[in-house]
Amino acid sequence: MDDDKPEKRLSLTDATTFAQQLCLAHGTSYAVASALANATVSAQAHGQHEVGFGHLPDYLSGFATGRIATAAEPIVTQVAPAMIRCDAAQGIAQLGFDRAFPVLCSNAHQLGIALFAQFNAFTCGELGYYTRRLAREGLVALAFTNGSPLLTVAGQSRPLYSTNPIAFAAASAAGRLLAIDQASSATAYVNLLRAAEAGEAIPAGWAVDAQGNETRSAREALHGTLLAFGGGRGANIALMVEVLAAGLTGANWSLDAADFRAGSESPGAGMLVIGIAPRLLDECFASRLGEQMTRLEALGVYLPGKAKEQAYARAVREGISLPLSAYDAFKAQVQ
Amino acid sequence: MDDDKPEKRLSLTDATTFAQQLCLAHGTSYAVASALANATVSAQAHGQHEVGFGHLPDYLSGFATGRIATAAEPIVTQVAPAMIRCDAAQGIAQLGFDRAFPVLCSNAHQLGIALFAQFNAFTCGELGYYTRRLAREGLVALAFTNGSPLLTVAGQSRPLYSTNPIAFAAASAAGRLLAIDQASSATAYVNLLRAAEAGEAIPAGWAVDAQGNETRSAREALHGTLLAFGGGRGANIALMVEVLAAGLTGANWSLDAADFRAGSESPGAGMLVIGIAPRLLDECFASRLGEQMTRLEALGVYLPGKAKEQAYARAVREGISLPLSAYDAFKAQVQ
Repeated sequence: MDDDKPEKRLSLTDATTFAQQLCLAHGTSYAVASALANATVSAQAHGQHEVGFGHLPDYLSGFATGRIATAAEPIVTQVAPAMIRCDAAQGIAQLGFDRAFPVLCSNAHQLGIALFAQFNAFTCGELGYYTRRLAREGLVALAFTNGSPLLTVAGQSRPLYSTNPIAFAAASAAGRLLAIDQASSATAYVNLLRAAEAGEAIPAGWAVDAQGNETRSAREALHGTLLAFGGGRGANIALMVEVLAAGLTGANWSLDAADFRAGSESPGAGMLVIGIAPRLLDECFASRLGEQMTRLEALGVYLPGKAKEQAYARAVREGISLPLSAYDAFKAQVQ
Repeated sequence: MDDDKPEKRLSLTDATTFAQQLCLAHGTSYAVASALANATVSAQAHGQHEVGFGHLPDYLSGFATGRIATAAEPIVTQVAPAMIRCDAAQGIAQLGFDRAFPVLCSNAHQLGIALFAQFNAFTCGELGYYTRRLAREGLVALAFTNGSPLLTVAGQSRPLYSTNPIAFAAASAAGRLLAIDQASSATAYVNLLRAAEAGEAIPAGWAVDAQGNETRSAREALHGTLLAFGGGRGANIALMVEVLAAGLTGANWSLDAADFRAGSESPGAGMLVIGIAPRLLDECFASRLGEQMTRLEALGVYLPGKAKEQAYARAVREGISLPLSAYDAFKAQVQ
């Protein structure tokens, strides 16, 4: 956040209570409010405003218009010893995961690997939230999700996939997390918006225009579609995520998912989360990982997840900050 | 293969017997010869000469110099109900997977998801070979592997990872495979060689020179290192593969892996393979996948794996072709 803008600072506890109140004021059940507040504050505390409080208006509007069921009770079923299926019942994505979490962890630790597959959900917010929690339980975690179509591949004009992110996390013995959370798109939509506002050109490979031609114009890109990162290989990653997150779970393909920002229909998105128990394979995994992280850093490699961990440590000490304008707008909704 | 070069055509059965004889002539056990011959012919029949018979000289030289144990007996242990660990005992990667395969499939079908983790192996050849076999058993499969260092990230000169590929496969109800098998590098090393021979420039983002500076000169790139595809996001994929394939399995990190093309030391590479039983989540998965593949193709999307499937169908009918020079060179080794 810019230092010259007025801010409201909140402790993590106060921020969580505030987010809960906002959800409850929009008619959610206490369980929904609590699950969403935890995820929102976690993202914010890890420095991810856009999937933290910056994303909350999408949820609140979703509760108001009906595209998120305000009191959905997820239906969690262990369909096989290492496999949990969850019908999110058109509600938020976080609650089903919360409900399944202890059993998912236990399954992975006992069986070696275990899976959580959810369909019929709203988009999942910060995907790294799910993998981070599993990594904190000593698991190596992978997650995949989809949602409304936003992304295409070279030669196409119609969006085929959502940003289809992958998240990955593992904890070292020293408690440091290696944590990847990245879209399959070359950039985030907000970067097109910023470039358009600034009148700047965008790099090749970021987007196509409305006709499906690659463009360097941010304004034309806003009428077009994001491209996958890394050309054909990135497009393959987006497709793989689509099959894992939507195909396996039985969720809507991105092509069939309703807009998560407007309307009264749930996107019916999917999410697949895998936890693996490394200690069953190698008791020294966590210390080996820590040594390798140290070695890579000594070689000059930037390790993904470091900035988020530092932001979180700061947030635990100092709380989180919201732009005062956003805080006031939220505050008006709970009074 | 070029049409103007003389070729030797072999049925798949004859090609398999030929590859077996070559291995046996280099002192391997029958089990090693058989496992490697099957993988070699499968890759070749899927149109992948460079990981088929084109790769066999690396194995034969490996048997001769001792960097591949000629009669290694893999030690396969089910360390947890959904988790198989395999010590390849410095032998080939394929034999341990063959031994574990029926139990891996059975575990996945019964438990929902199951894992195979191998360390102490030679590089695995065509990674798609492993995922394809699981997909043919009705599983959705993921695989990750590492090996000798060949790949770096922007700003570095030293190779940090092997090409660190990912493979993914799933079968539709009609029997068609969606199959991804791609390196984390922007291109294959052989493409640098070809460009250098042709005196052509290489695209930005393919490689750095010996000093770690990005280069468009193929000749300078040959003294340097391959770059990950797609910038920072691709570098993260390479790192994720490293943690999954080497970290989780207890294999050598790529930084510590001996050269797979020279010397007497095993690279001690790792491979992680995951199988997921989609029907336990959604009975209609295979038909839904087929419909989605049809829809994506109608929208103009090229589906990865299609060319390999077509090559394989042709190879079943017509056999495979080897350059006559290569065939004669092999032949001389078994007589």
